[in-house]
Amino acid sequence: MNFLDELQRLVAQVERGINQHLPLPDAAPRRLHTAMRYSLEAGGKRLRPVLALATAEALGVSGDGALPAAVALECIHTYSLIHDDLPCMDNDDLRRGRPTAHKAFDEATALLAGDALLTYAFALLANAYADQPNLAHGLIRELATAAGSQRLIGGQMADLLAEKKANATSEELDFIHLNKTAAMIEASLVMGGLVGGAEPSQIATLRTAGRHLGLSFQIIDDILDVTATSHDLGKTAGKDARTGKTTYVTQHGLESARRFAAAHASAARLEIARFPGSVGFLIALIESMAARTK
Amino acid sequence: MNFLDELQRLVAQVERGINQHLPLPDAAPRRLHTAMRYSLEAGGKRLRPVLALATAEALGVSGDGALPAAVALECIHTYSLIHDDLPCMDNDDLRRGRPTAHKAFDEATALLAGDALLTYAFALLANAYADQPNLAHGLIRELATAAGSQRLIGGQMADLLAEKKANATSEELDFIHLNKTAAMIEASLVMGGLVGGAEPSQIATLRTAGRHLGLSFQIIDDILDVTATSHDLGKTAGKDARTGKTTYVTQHGLESARRFAAAHASAARLEIARFPGSVGFLIALIESMAARTK
Repeated sequence: MNFLDELQRLVAQVERGINQHLPLPDAAPRRLHTAMRYSLEAGGKRLRPVLALATAEALGVSGDGALPAAVALECIHTYSLIHDDLPCMDNDDLRRGRPTAHKAFDEATALLAGDALLTYAFALLANAYADQPNLAHGLIRELATAAGSQRLIGGQMADLLAEKKANATSEELDFIHLNKTAAMIEASLVMGGLVGGAEPSQIATLRTAGRHLGLSFQIIDDILDVTATSHDLGKTAGKDARTGKTTYVTQHGLESARRFAAAHASAARLEIARFPGSVGFLIALIESMAARTK
Repeated sequence: MNFLDELQRLVAQVERGINQHLPLPDAAPRRLHTAMRYSLEAGGKRLRPVLALATAEALGVSGDGALPAAVALECIHTYSLIHDDLPCMDNDDLRRGRPTAHKAFDEATALLAGDALLTYAFALLANAYADQPNLAHGLIRELATAAGSQRLIGGQMADLLAEKKANATSEELDFIHLNKTAAMIEASLVMGGLVGGAEPSQIATLRTAGRHLGLSFQIIDDILDVTATSHDLGKTAGKDARTGKTTYVTQHGLESARRFAAAHASAARLEIARFPGSVGFLIALIESMAARTK
C-alpha cells in the first residue's frame, strides 16, 4: 500500500473514532455538545492521532486498540486551538477554513467547549481502557503531563508573553517550541507506544523522535506563516510578521530556519529507523511532514 | 475533639496539601504558576477536599492517603471558578474577598491558569497514586466524569443559557443544580470512599448522600444571594435578583426554598448515618452546611 493511501486510511479511522467516541450532539446541554463536535469535526491534518495509530501499528497493534488514545490526543489539541483562538488570546476568526468556535457560537460556549474537550480526553482514556487499568493510568499520566502547565499550556503562556516583548531570546523561543508544539507530538508517539506495549527503552526512543519531529513541525509552521497563503493554511497567514512576533524565521532567517527544520526531521527519522517493527509508514510520514507546504 | 477543631484540622491539612502538591510558583512560566497558586491559595471553605478527607477517615484511612485526591478536587473547583468569573461568563471582579484571577492578572493568564489547574488535577492523581494504578484509575474516572460536559461543565452551560431566558423551567433548574453543584460534591464523597476502600454498595450510598448534600448546598446558595451581604459571601451578593435569574428562591419563594434545603440535608444525613465507620464528623459537617449563613 502506498503512503497516501495508508495516510488516508488512518485519517478516516480517526474521523470514525471521533464520531464514535464523542458524546452525541443531542446530549444535554445540546449547545455544548454541538460546539464540541463542531471544532473536533472541522478536519485538519489529524497529525497527532495518526502518529499514535501508526506507532501502535508499527508495534503490531492494529485495529482500534489505539483509537481511544488517538481521539483523546485530538480532543486536547482541539481544545488548545479553541482557547488559543479566543479574543483574549490570539483573537482569530478563522481556523481550518471555517469560523472559529467563538465566532460560530459565542465566547462562553467556546470556553466551555474547550474545557469539556480537555476533560473528556481523560474520561475517554479512563473508560475505554477500563479493563487495563495499568495502561489507562500510563496513558493518562503521559497526556496530563504533556498537556500541563510545564508543557503545552506553559508553552502557550510563554508564547503570549513573548508576543508582548520586542525580542524574545533564543532560549525563550526554544522553550515555546519544545512545549507548545513538541510536547503533544512527543506524547502522540509515546501513547501509541504504550498501547503497543513498548519497553521503557523504546518509549525513550519514541520520546526523542517525537521531540525532534515536533521541533521540525513548529519551525516549518513559522516558515509557512511567511511563505504560504491563508487559503493554503486554513488560518490567517502572515500573522507573526504583522504582530512582530519572534519566530525561528525572524531569529535565524528563512534559509537557516529551513536547515533547522530539516535537521530535526532527519534526527527524528534516524531515531525511528532504529526502532524494531515495521516503521516504513512512520518514516514516510516524517518525510512528508518535513516537505509540507500547508 | 469537637466539630470546629476537627474542621480546622482538616482545612489546615488541605492548605498544606495544596502547598505541597502544586508546582512551585517559580516553575517556568512563572506568571502561570503564580496565577495557579493565587486562585488556589485564596482560601474559601475547602468544602470538597474536606468532605473527601472526612469520608476516607470515616473508613479508617487517616493521614495523607486521601490528600492528593482532596487537592485534585480543589484544583477542579478552583479552575471552574476562574473560568466562571471571566468577562465572557459571569464577569465577576470579586471572589473570596479578593480580585478575581483575570483582574489580578489578565484574561489570557486567567484562562490558561484555569486550563492548567484542570489538567493538573489529573496529573496529580496519576502521579500520587502511581503505585496503585487501580485506585488512580478509579479516582480519575470519577473526577473526569463529575467535571465533564454532562455534569459540572454541562451545568455551567445550562446555567448560562437559563440566564438568557426570562423563565427557566423547574426541570432546567434541577438539571443546573444537579450538575453545576451536586456533581462535584458527590465526587468528593465518592473519591474519599474510593481511597478508603469502600465497597460498591457503600460507594452508591456516598453518591446518594453527595447528591442530596449538593442540592441542599446550592439551594442555600440561592437563598444567601438574597439574604446575605457581599462582605459575608466574599463575592457579589444580590446578583441573581439583579440579573433576573431563575433560582429556587424565585421559583418557590424563600420559605419553600428553606424547606427544600433542609429536606435534602436531612436525606444526606440519613444516608451517611447508615454508613459503617465513625461518621460523627461527617454528620456534623452536613448539619453545619445546612445552617450556614455565608
